[in-house]
Amino acid sequence: MRSSGDLGLHSLDDAERAAAAALPPEVRDFVAGGSGRETTLDANRAAFDALFVVPRVLRDVSGCTTATTLLGRPAALPVAAAPVAYQRLVHPEGELAAVRAAAAAGVPFTASTLSSVPLDALTAVGGTVWFQLYWLRDERRTVELVRRAEDTGCAALMLTVDVPWMARRLRDVRNGFALPDGVRAAEVDTGGAAHHRAAGASSVAAHTGQAFSSGLTWASVERLRALTRLPLVLKGVLAPEDARRAAEFGVDALVVSNHGGRQLDGAVPSIDALPAVADAAGPACEVLLDSGVRSGTDVLRALALGASGVLVGRPLVWGLAAAGEDGVRRVLDLLGGELRDALGLAGCHDPSDARGLRTVSRQQPHRPAPERGLSNASA
Amino acid sequence: MRSSGDLGLHSLDDAERAAAAALPPEVRDFVAGGSGRETTLDANRAAFDALFVVPRVLRDVSGCTTATTLLGRPAALPVAAAPVAYQRLVHPEGELAAVRAAAAAGVPFTASTLSSVPLDALTAVGGTVWFQLYWLRDERRTVELVRRAEDTGCAALMLTVDVPWMARRLRDVRNGFALPDGVRAAEVDTGGAAHHRAAGASSVAAHTGQAFSSGLTWASVERLRALTRLPLVLKGVLAPEDARRAAEFGVDALVVSNHGGRQLDGAVPSIDALPAVADAAGPACEVLLDSGVRSGTDVLRALALGASGVLVGRPLVWGLAAAGEDGVRRVLDLLGGELRDALGLAGCHDPSDARGLRTVSRQQPHRPAPERGLSNASA
Amino acid sequence: MRSSGDLGLHSLDDAERAAAAALPPEVRDFVAGGSGRETTLDANRAAFDALFVVPRVLRDVSGCTTATTLLGRPAALPVAAAPVAYQRLVHPEGELAAVRAAAAAGVPFTASTLSSVPLDALTAVGGTVWFQLYWLRDERRTVELVRRAEDTGCAALMLTVDVPWMARRLRDVRNGFALPDGVRAAEVDTGGAAHHRAAGASSVAAHTGQAFSSGLTWASVERLRALTRLPLVLKGVLAPEDARRAAEFGVDALVVSNHGGRQLDGAVPSIDALPAVADAAGPACEVLLDSGVRSGTDVLRALALGASGVLVGRPLVWGLAAAGEDGVRRVLDLLGGELRDALGLAGCHDPSDARGLRTVSRQQPHRPAPERGLSNASA
Amino acid sequence: MRSSGDLGLHSLDDAERAAAAALPPEVRDFVAGGSGRETTLDANRAAFDALFVVPRVLRDVSGCTTATTLLGRPAALPVAAAPVAYQRLVHPEGELAAVRAAAAAGVPFTASTLSSVPLDALTAVGGTVWFQLYWLRDERRTVELVRRAEDTGCAALMLTVDVPWMARRLRDVRNGFALPDGVRAAEVDTGGAAHHRAAGASSVAAHTGQAFSSGLTWASVERLRALTRLPLVLKGVLAPEDARRAAEFGVDALVVSNHGGRQLDGAVPSIDALPAVADAAGPACEVLLDSGVRSGTDVLRALALGASGVLVGRPLVWGLAAAGEDGVRRVLDLLGGELRDALGLAGCHDPSDARGLRTVSRQQPHRPAPERGLSNASA
Repeated sequence: MRSSGDLGLHSLDDAERAAAAALPPEVRDFVAGGSGRETTLDANRAAFDALFVVPRVLRDVSGCTTATTLLGRPAALPVAAAPVAYQRLVHPEGELAAVRAAAAAGVPFTASTLSSVPLDALTAVGGTVWFQLYWLRDERRTVELVRRAEDTGCAALMLTVDVPWMARRLRDVRNGFALPDGVRAAEVDTGGAAHHRAAGASSVAAHTGQAFSSGLTWASVERLRALTRLPLVLKGVLAPEDARRAAEFGVDALVVSNHGGRQLDGAVPSIDALPAVADAAGPACEVLLDSGVRSGTDVLRALALGASGVLVGRPLVWGLAAAGEDGVRRVLDLLGGELRDALGLAGCHDPSDARGLRTVSRQQPHRPAPERGLSNASA
Repeated sequence: MRSSGDLGLHSLDDAERAAAAALPPEVRDFVAGGSGRETTLDANRAAFDALFVVPRVLRDVSGCTTATTLLGRPAALPVAAAPVAYQRLVHPEGELAAVRAAAAAGVPFTASTLSSVPLDALTAVGGTVWFQLYWLRDERRTVELVRRAEDTGCAALMLTVDVPWMARRLRDVRNGFALPDGVRAAEVDTGGAAHHRAAGASSVAAHTGQAFSSGLTWASVERLRALTRLPLVLKGVLAPEDARRAAEFGVDALVVSNHGGRQLDGAVPSIDALPAVADAAGPACEVLLDSGVRSGTDVLRALALGASGVLVGRPLVWGLAAAGEDGVRRVLDLLGGELRDALGLAGCHDPSDARGLRTVSRQQPHRPAPERGLSNASA
Repeated sequence: MRSSGDLGLHSLDDAERAAAAALPPEVRDFVAGGSGRETTLDANRAAFDALFVVPRVLRDVSGCTTATTLLGRPAALPVAAAPVAYQRLVHPEGELAAVRAAAAAGVPFTASTLSSVPLDALTAVGGTVWFQLYWLRDERRTVELVRRAEDTGCAALMLTVDVPWMARRLRDVRNGFALPDGVRAAEVDTGGAAHHRAAGASSVAAHTGQAFSSGLTWASVERLRALTRLPLVLKGVLAPEDARRAAEFGVDALVVSNHGGRQLDGAVPSIDALPAVADAAGPACEVLLDSGVRSGTDVLRALALGASGVLVGRPLVWGLAAAGEDGVRRVLDLLGGELRDALGLAGCHDPSDARGLRTVSRQQPHRPAPERGLSNASA
Repeated sequence: MRSSGDLGLHSLDDAERAAAAALPPEVRDFVAGGSGRETTLDANRAAFDALFVVPRVLRDVSGCTTATTLLGRPAALPVAAAPVAYQRLVHPEGELAAVRAAAAAGVPFTASTLSSVPLDALTAVGGTVWFQLYWLRDERRTVELVRRAEDTGCAALMLTVDVPWMARRLRDVRNGFALPDGVRAAEVDTGGAAHHRAAGASSVAAHTGQAFSSGLTWASVERLRALTRLPLVLKGVLAPEDARRAAEFGVDALVVSNHGGRQLDGAVPSIDALPAVADAAGPACEVLLDSGVRSGTDVLRALALGASGVLVGRPLVWGLAAAGEDGVRRVLDLLGGELRDALGLAGCHDPSDARGLRTVSRQQPHRPAPERGLSNASA
């Protein structure tokens, strides 16, 4: 019983299943995997599931809206597309399909330094595009990337600060994962390293080890701040001390993130780290969050704990893998619908009302969440 | 080995199994399902299971009784039938069978605004009937419903405050759930919307979206308070701030409820929210609880944390589905027997003694509770 | 690879498996089952498993001994046989085999009011026998039981205070459990009720409902205290308020117990209740514990939290079911060996050294403990 | 897809699987098993998995190194090989292969009193060798062992203080485990006891019961301190009181350890005990940790909580069983690589930077960790 408009996808978990069916195993693994024992990957979900919200009642929510601003610009949802490398791995149109869907849905799209579609093609679509910056060993190239982001009309610069190098992701290592010939980073010269298939090694990790700087410091942030007038976002902050310092350095926003469980295995779940970071960042520095958001309720949880929005990565990739632009749009529509539901049912008229909702922590016994909604449909 | 009187039902879990066997899958799903990922649905049970009571000893419990008062009237148990819509979905006699069983058992029955049997037929049975009110977009109809409740002799008015609209319940969405032709709301004009089967959508949700107001506020409570002399109950309060305000507005009672996990997915388990709400409500505002009550021990837990009684929804529907009026009666008898057991074994002479029993919280490892009692019977 | 002396039993879990294989399902259920949803039954184990001990080192444990005193008399272990009714259900020699094993092992045996072997036969064996007293509705008979305990040479009177009536034990209810003809309470007139097989009912529960008083109060304790010079023990105390009162009434000892999860379902695990009870009871009132003890480490845990000893019920029944007197003896020997191990490895010279060992609570993920030791042996 | 250099081992869990495939069941059990119900064995892992680290960012980690000092000497990693008895059980070259791999990797090797290769052969390899001392009943032999350690050039003496006797390890008991003829302790006279196969008993435990002293006290430590100038380490300290005393006795280092879950079942996980011990030991007494370390992140966790390094036992044995010297080296290389990853991704330039990283505790739902990384590779 599938209607044409909804693609048979009724939750983000559905999109995950659809993507898993559509993708070759090693690509599915590249998307799904975390680092090491995947402790943090799992904990990201466990931490959301353990967080309960105390809703308010008898507030007029007839005009309830998900509309908000992100980095000073209007957004239809407090949600942006997270930077995800090499999206042509999962669909021939890659980032182009994704940015079209994001623009149509009214949410910012973050283009990765490792975008497999050129940046100008993405900004040409007309929505809000942020540029995610990896600080390259070749600093001249780094500066060129900043200029390129400015020239193509990107609305913000998001510096990733949690990747001095790529962590060991066992699934890729076991699969000897390498990029297929047809997929390459459009903005940086990969030199072929990311395509070199080797047993027991991830070529993507090898490439980033060659290309990225592991010497990034606060001085780099200062330099970047001086280099551009674009709003500056640091992605990958989990410690309140670092949030405080970011605010001192005039950073416009932070993304509380453990890189979706893909960098330090054993890093704190980002939703657990959020309250202290939001408190330390202070009013002048906006706080976003990613790593584990899978529903509108998750967005509400993040808003309640002090975020002004979230980034969503894997779910959009699932949509992309499942049905290209339509799939990404469907995922964003589902998320928007769920969030409006969550806001209204919690007594919030808009996203800003959610800050300060009481929350209660209660560790849940494990259950395989994605299977639940299907138990009866399949009966 | 089934005796005629007990219908082979020895616990509320048995009734769940019997109902599951009796009902078509999509109706079973409509009854069982929660919203979203069903996090709150599951957490309601986990929260009860994690709450332990410290019993007292050497008190004379030879005359132990479950009798109490609810909203100022005597009740055989600190238990009322929760409002449940469209009960003719599960049994041809629907609410009529249920109210007969409730009356015979001496417990109040709450008729839903979406009752599939007319209100006068329910009050004619002679027991205590409370009327659950959804505030309709058409306020004139809302006032008429209040008058109808008064005219038919309902003993209280229970305004549901946690449904500005119906949450997205995935099972219904996947099933494309719609009411069958023979089942309709007897007191409100459904206009057919609830019967329109559509793929990937719940027609019941669609209908409530058309019919219910999402603009309910404290002013509505004030208006309702002025409109009727019936005791006024707010159902769906979880925040202590809202409880305090309810008391200020002269509300007679609250139901601490997350709508059985069917509204905000991620809402706090009601048993976790109870102590702060009971404290905030103060002595003049009675506090009831629903969402997850499945045994006499659960009732004892709620009493210990400050409730004066509980509402029970799904278990009565299970009884109704399994064996009509006899089934509902059996469920209430089981619950009454279990509660008397629990009270006496905790050293309580009656329900009021239970308030103030010490409790201890200990998260339990997950186990599939309903299966346990059967492990050996089936061997 | 089974040696003759050890009966192939290397842990108490082994004895459980052996008993399960030896007993008819309904008797196995009668022994194993708890009340209601068996929440407390399970929580008793989870609570022990979540309690970790901080051992001490570099203390001379070369003469480490398990010897201690219980109720003022020497005992080879801080362990007594818990009162268990109708032991002839699991082995033709019943309590007689068990008391012989207990006497040989140097631990007290508690004879139940519902012993299936006459009391004089048990005391004739020559070990320490305590008499467990159910307060009968016929108080004259109750006094006769006290006299009978004195006359037969019982060393203490243990009044059960947590059974105003028998809780609903679903397994027995489902099985329609009744005593077989050859098994009866030797000291009280059962009037046949416990043997009357009825579908959907436990005849044992029915009988105790007829025979036991549910009006027991502190006045009964006072009367009993005046009635006999035997040491007086109250079994089934979980609340510190009750412990304090017991001490005031001159009670000699308490058993912190939830009746092995067989009375109030949802009652606090006894090991969780122990510290506050031990504190409230004060130095003049000895504190024992039962409900869930399955290893020497469990005994150590109880000693660390303030108990001077434990009662063990089901494990002895398992030994009895598996191999009669030899089986009970094997279980006690295993427990003694494990306790000596635990004491010595924790740096304790004897049981009194264990009090005050630091403990740490850490909820463990669920795992099926009894299966673990076998994983490889069966490979 | 196996490259020659990595032996197909990409994590320590891989090595465990490879060893399980290579070893006879009873040897695998001897290595894997814990005491009693294996509560502490399991809790060691659960405790690590529940501990999350808050990483720092924007620190220059381009020169990130795992190099450190242990007991005052340079080590390539804050890791040493834990003492493990009878390593020739799992590979013909036994400790000789292991010490060669440790020396090549630049980490200290701890030779057990029960080494199956003579001590002089191990020190002849040229790396740092520590000698683990069991205090024998025959004190003259104990002194000879100390002299032997000095004469062969061992760099430290590690006195095991948590084995007054060997705990009951059920797997060995069930297997009737005994040493095969070709494997014996090279430095102590076993008298054949450890080779005597008996049903329902562990001959290794029997032998240690005969050979080891259970009368070890602080006086023994004092005596040992006076006997040698070698750095003195106490292994098996979990209580802060004992750590404080060790520092007073001039002990150079402690190993916080529960013997890998092989001694007191129910002993606190060592990672849980670490902070209080590190605090009590003070600055003059170095603190190491073992029991459950299975990844570089685990090392980071221990460093964050105050350890200056860890010992690793079973993982090296897995490497040895899987591929001899190459296997041990591979395990150490994996651990080193993972640790460098973890340090750098947490913003640490070297191991000393890790102390004081914030940590967060969050109990994780159970999942079978070792299986995870393989889920897709096997698809």
